Amino acid sequence: MGSTALGGAAPARAGLAPKIVRLLANHPQFRITVMTADRKAGEQFGSVFPHLITQDLPNLVAIKDADFSDVDAVFCCLPHGTTQEIIKGLPQQLKIVDLSADFRLRNINEYAEWYGHAHRAPELQEEAVYGLTEVLRDEIRNARLVANPGCYPTSIQLPLVPLIKAKLIKLSNIIIDAKSGVTGAGRGAKEANLYTEIAEGIHAYGIKGHRHVPEVEQGLSEAAESKVTISFTPNLICMKRGMQSTMFVEMAPGVTVSDLYQHLKSTYEGEEFVKLLNGSNVPHTRHVVGSNYCFMNVFEDRIPGRAIIISVIDNLVKGASGQAVQNLNLMMGLPENMGLQYQPLFP
Amino acid sequence: MGSTALGGAAPARAGLAPKIVRLLANHPQFRITVMTADRKAGEQFGSVFPHLITQDLPNLVAIKDADFSDVDAVFCCLPHGTTQEIIKGLPQQLKIVDLSADFRLRNINEYAEWYGHAHRAPELQEEAVYGLTEVLRDEIRNARLVANPGCYPTSIQLPLVPLIKAKLIKLSNIIIDAKSGVTGAGRGAKEANLYTEIAEGIHAYGIKGHRHVPEVEQGLSEAAESKVTISFTPNLICMKRGMQSTMFVEMAPGVTVSDLYQHLKSTYEGEEFVKLLNGSNVPHTRHVVGSNYCFMNVFEDRIPGRAIIISVIDNLVKGASGQAVQNLNLMMGLPENMGLQYQPLFP
Amino acid sequence: MGSTALGGAAPARAGLAPKIVRLLANHPQFRITVMTADRKAGEQFGSVFPHLITQDLPNLVAIKDADFSDVDAVFCCLPHGTTQEIIKGLPQQLKIVDLSADFRLRNINEYAEWYGHAHRAPELQEEAVYGLTEVLRDEIRNARLVANPGCYPTSIQLPLVPLIKAKLIKLSNIIIDAKSGVTGAGRGAKEANLYTEIAEGIHAYGIKGHRHVPEVEQGLSEAAESKVTISFTPNLICMKRGMQSTMFVEMAPGVTVSDLYQHLKSTYEGEEFVKLLNGSNVPHTRHVVGSNYCFMNVFEDRIPGRAIIISVIDNLVKGASGQAVQNLNLMMGLPENMGLQYQPLFP
Amino acid sequence: MGSTALGGAAPARAGLAPKIVRLLANHPQFRITVMTADRKAGEQFGSVFPHLITQDLPNLVAIKDADFSDVDAVFCCLPHGTTQEIIKGLPQQLKIVDLSADFRLRNINEYAEWYGHAHRAPELQEEAVYGLTEVLRDEIRNARLVANPGCYPTSIQLPLVPLIKAKLIKLSNIIIDAKSGVTGAGRGAKEANLYTEIAEGIHAYGIKGHRHVPEVEQGLSEAAESKVTISFTPNLICMKRGMQSTMFVEMAPGVTVSDLYQHLKSTYEGEEFVKLLNGSNVPHTRHVVGSNYCFMNVFEDRIPGRAIIISVIDNLVKGASGQAVQNLNLMMGLPENMGLQYQPLFP
Repeated sequence: MGSTALGGAAPARAGLAPKIVRLLANHPQFRITVMTADRKAGEQFGSVFPHLITQDLPNLVAIKDADFSDVDAVFCCLPHGTTQEIIKGLPQQLKIVDLSADFRLRNINEYAEWYGHAHRAPELQEEAVYGLTEVLRDEIRNARLVANPGCYPTSIQLPLVPLIKAKLIKLSNIIIDAKSGVTGAGRGAKEANLYTEIAEGIHAYGIKGHRHVPEVEQGLSEAAESKVTISFTPNLICMKRGMQSTMFVEMAPGVTVSDLYQHLKSTYEGEEFVKLLNGSNVPHTRHVVGSNYCFMNVFEDRIPGRAIIISVIDNLVKGASGQAVQNLNLMMGLPENMGLQYQPLFP
Repeated sequence: MGSTALGGAAPARAGLAPKIVRLLANHPQFRITVMTADRKAGEQFGSVFPHLITQDLPNLVAIKDADFSDVDAVFCCLPHGTTQEIIKGLPQQLKIVDLSADFRLRNINEYAEWYGHAHRAPELQEEAVYGLTEVLRDEIRNARLVANPGCYPTSIQLPLVPLIKAKLIKLSNIIIDAKSGVTGAGRGAKEANLYTEIAEGIHAYGIKGHRHVPEVEQGLSEAAESKVTISFTPNLICMKRGMQSTMFVEMAPGVTVSDLYQHLKSTYEGEEFVKLLNGSNVPHTRHVVGSNYCFMNVFEDRIPGRAIIISVIDNLVKGASGQAVQNLNLMMGLPENMGLQYQPLFP
Repeated sequence: MGSTALGGAAPARAGLAPKIVRLLANHPQFRITVMTADRKAGEQFGSVFPHLITQDLPNLVAIKDADFSDVDAVFCCLPHGTTQEIIKGLPQQLKIVDLSADFRLRNINEYAEWYGHAHRAPELQEEAVYGLTEVLRDEIRNARLVANPGCYPTSIQLPLVPLIKAKLIKLSNIIIDAKSGVTGAGRGAKEANLYTEIAEGIHAYGIKGHRHVPEVEQGLSEAAESKVTISFTPNLICMKRGMQSTMFVEMAPGVTVSDLYQHLKSTYEGEEFVKLLNGSNVPHTRHVVGSNYCFMNVFEDRIPGRAIIISVIDNLVKGASGQAVQNLNLMMGLPENMGLQYQPLFP
Repeated sequence: MGSTALGGAAPARAGLAPKIVRLLANHPQFRITVMTADRKAGEQFGSVFPHLITQDLPNLVAIKDADFSDVDAVFCCLPHGTTQEIIKGLPQQLKIVDLSADFRLRNINEYAEWYGHAHRAPELQEEAVYGLTEVLRDEIRNARLVANPGCYPTSIQLPLVPLIKAKLIKLSNIIIDAKSGVTGAGRGAKEANLYTEIAEGIHAYGIKGHRHVPEVEQGLSEAAESKVTISFTPNLICMKRGMQSTMFVEMAPGVTVSDLYQHLKSTYEGEEFVKLLNGSNVPHTRHVVGSNYCFMNVFEDRIPGRAIIISVIDNLVKGASGQAVQNLNLMMGLPENMGLQYQPLFP
């Protein structure tokens, strides 16, 4: 049951397609029957991504030539902005998980402001469900079109949404210092992403204007039922995969770090992929790479009344392709963890 | 069917235990029921290796306290030298894959010469089968005790043994320049393996005296039916996993690079884990990391009559734990690839 | 004029000795005449640090055997805690720059609290001058004993002290997320600092209890003339050298980011080693590695009234040995930048 | 005395310009008065290379607008192929060190074969002196135009030329396995050089056809006074700077490894930048990074009659900009080591 098409090998998001292929290679229920890539049409996937040459995959075709008659579901790994129109053109019976940012922002005006053009499929935007699995599981189960969350938003919302809903932290002065591996930037050949520019170093980027900000603020504001504005400083560090979000928060009056811990513990107790660490164990990005896990923990701050929350994910798995498979599992009525029980590859 | 015990969390080989745990986590037929570690007895495996905290594993016990009554097979990840006596003491009905070097050298005198002491279980040494799966599949299938090959020897023998058996290359002047990631050195806290000593650099080590030399020469000599002496220069490079062996060989008179290619092609055509690349594609270590694959290819040299052969593996998977699981699958009558179909984690 | 002795090759701080040797190799006025190392006495420095074998250096001697008669000044690179008594025993006429933490905390009780024992040379502690060069230049010029600052404290105090003195930022809720390369941890052979544990990842450590906290709070409190408590989260990242401190601050009422920028600009205008970047240029750690520079800049936050300040240094140069040479230059009446005009080694 | 112009900020070779700027920053006799860069004309160098913003440098100008009236010497960092015509157009009185490959091959036909077009300045090619400093010092001293050697050729010829001249090694079967950091590939934005494609891995490239081959064979053939054909396999490894060449050679009859060692020792005894290591010390690339040193050593092979020679350099210093400054020092009658006494930056 269940065969899937996979779209997109443009440089920007193409990094994501091979990650989904990796996950589907061992998925007991999904089979890849169509793969599209306009510029590489006619080529073999393994010639573009030589680490996957052992897979027996259909040749790449242009989207316009794709035959969706035997397809149940689609992972869409196309560049931001172009995805809207392509999804509009897909057969109605397909389930779709879109890994671009096109359907993440519910507010059409906010989309236009951050992406510089009017949304081209506002009715689909209306229909789309935001795919933060552990938070919106029931909606996702019944969705036809899921907007898969960004990596930073996943790592930030998983701890903060429940704490905000429970009114345990203040909404003002939520300060986030986040660090991402380079794969977050895609496979485009930009000078800034050369080995020589990245290795052995760290730098902040997009300090005020990172496009994941409205996505995070949307999620936190909905949890708070009022507008939340965050301080968000992303950093690029010299690693391929991995993401750490460090969140500095003020607790509501009378709340302690132990309250935060207990609330996260009860929230995520039964979850397979979200793990609150024991005691004062610190989440390391290396301990989740290659897996769909989010590890998190809460720490006391030296400043009374404040707490520090740290979460880590593999930006390409729980922050992208893994959560996408998790969502499609739900949408197809399969066990949510099917094909996702990869343990982290450490060291 | 099939439950396994896993021994050893001493620093030297302990790096290997968690890699097997990773592989067994998704193995449909093996279940870990006993884990031993003398110095860490009583602890949880996940507290020693935090990336595996999500696994539900038995607590570590001392070997002497281990209950093997419910155990069918054992992976032995103990330090070189100590393994011999411990295996001697295990119940006879257990299947054993030993990841140490203790049973790799068939010649007891050679063992004594390279390891500095007389072998402590010569009768077991007699019984042990060398676990180079693709080469010795039939013997492994019927073995009780398998000596799992070293990483360098795996990457070298897979291409050279068939070429030597077919008399396509000369036995003199086989020159090997090999490069290994740091995990080959285990998890011991030595200054030489600190990040600051390893990052951003390369150096040769053990130029004349690496202990994998007699293992390689044993395999090549058996293939040649005469004594082969190799030139072997291993290098440590700034990566965690991965191994590249570059082999510079003289071809037998009249033999061409195309002959070498064709022979390797026919030898490994049906193999799942050994892949001869197409055309002039160069094997990259990054394209096999996390998987049980060996990628290889053959190239013309500028010097007439010579050829260059390059093979790459993940030293911790095909070079250790992956090949170990592959061997136990065979020994237990299971499909050889069971639980091993991980695609490489790239990037 | 000016010959120097260099003490200390114990693992913990020993990382620092070779960095000073590197800087002194080209210093026009300093010559190394004595090098001490109790455990390595009798050895050559170049055999311990092979990258310095081309230097013609005196053999290592035990401190008790050192002849200080021809010595004008000493760099002390001994472990925290042991330095106090050794410096007490040095001839009075020597100028001393101490790179340990022993004399950094002016408050003897605070020292005892953070280091777990009473200070063993309180009268010297009284005499010692804190060596944050740009901030305490005049005091340093006349000092006999300078306590060279820690790396985190250098990167944090350089931007924050002038802003606090000018009352441009609030004293509450100063939140610092800092990232350090591994060399900050010295050359000790600990599992936690192995390549395999560090490469390709990030993790926070010492969240509440890093020993640089009292040093930073001391500096900020003196600038504020009242007690300042900071939130400080250090992170270890997979790079050898480099440090980034990101400081999230609330501005005083009516103050703008432009006010912060202008004040830092006028403060550091004539400085050779502290550079405020132009416009919105973001400091990268890679752009200062190998040099004595501190690059910094100020950014608007999305939350009104807040600002984000980022500074970067090479933790081993401006954060240790470079600032030490800068201080000794001052103490000896030499141009402050002598021997320090190394450009960053990028890439 | 001596002011210099610096040409070229095209992506391919532009990586080299900032390395020369770094070295000249502290050179007591050279001052940069003109910097050319056609595509970036009008910009400041520090805006292209932010790690050099502290330098007071002339703005970039187009070559056609450059005023050479106040210039004594030129470092030419232009792309291969374009340099010929530009140098043809420079004023005759200028001393020139060319870092491209344009004038390295003495044989015009060989140039055409490897670079795909007829040489455009054959008379200059005639005049050019090959700048392997330690080997051709006298010729360089009197040269007007020096062709600065490639990085691989430098690391290979320094050990092999003297051994071949002394007839200590055989000319057949010289096998070289070399490893380079990524900076060898320049700063061009190619997918193959992205962090994600390079980090944590190794792969061979250009196995038969690397353009440094004819340069090496030219040097070895001249030393041998007969045509030498080498086996050359370069590898790209995950480091920024650094190069290791491992040379597998057969010794002439009766020659021992000790003979090779002694000959290299006497050859390089008085040299400042070429160091034969003691005993069995292995050269590490990390121990020369940032410096103009070449470290080398000779080792016995397991195969009787063979030896293994390993040399390491910083490909951007001794392999490019450092040797260029060394050459210009000679050409200007200055001490050869002036401005080059940088110690390696380790770790």
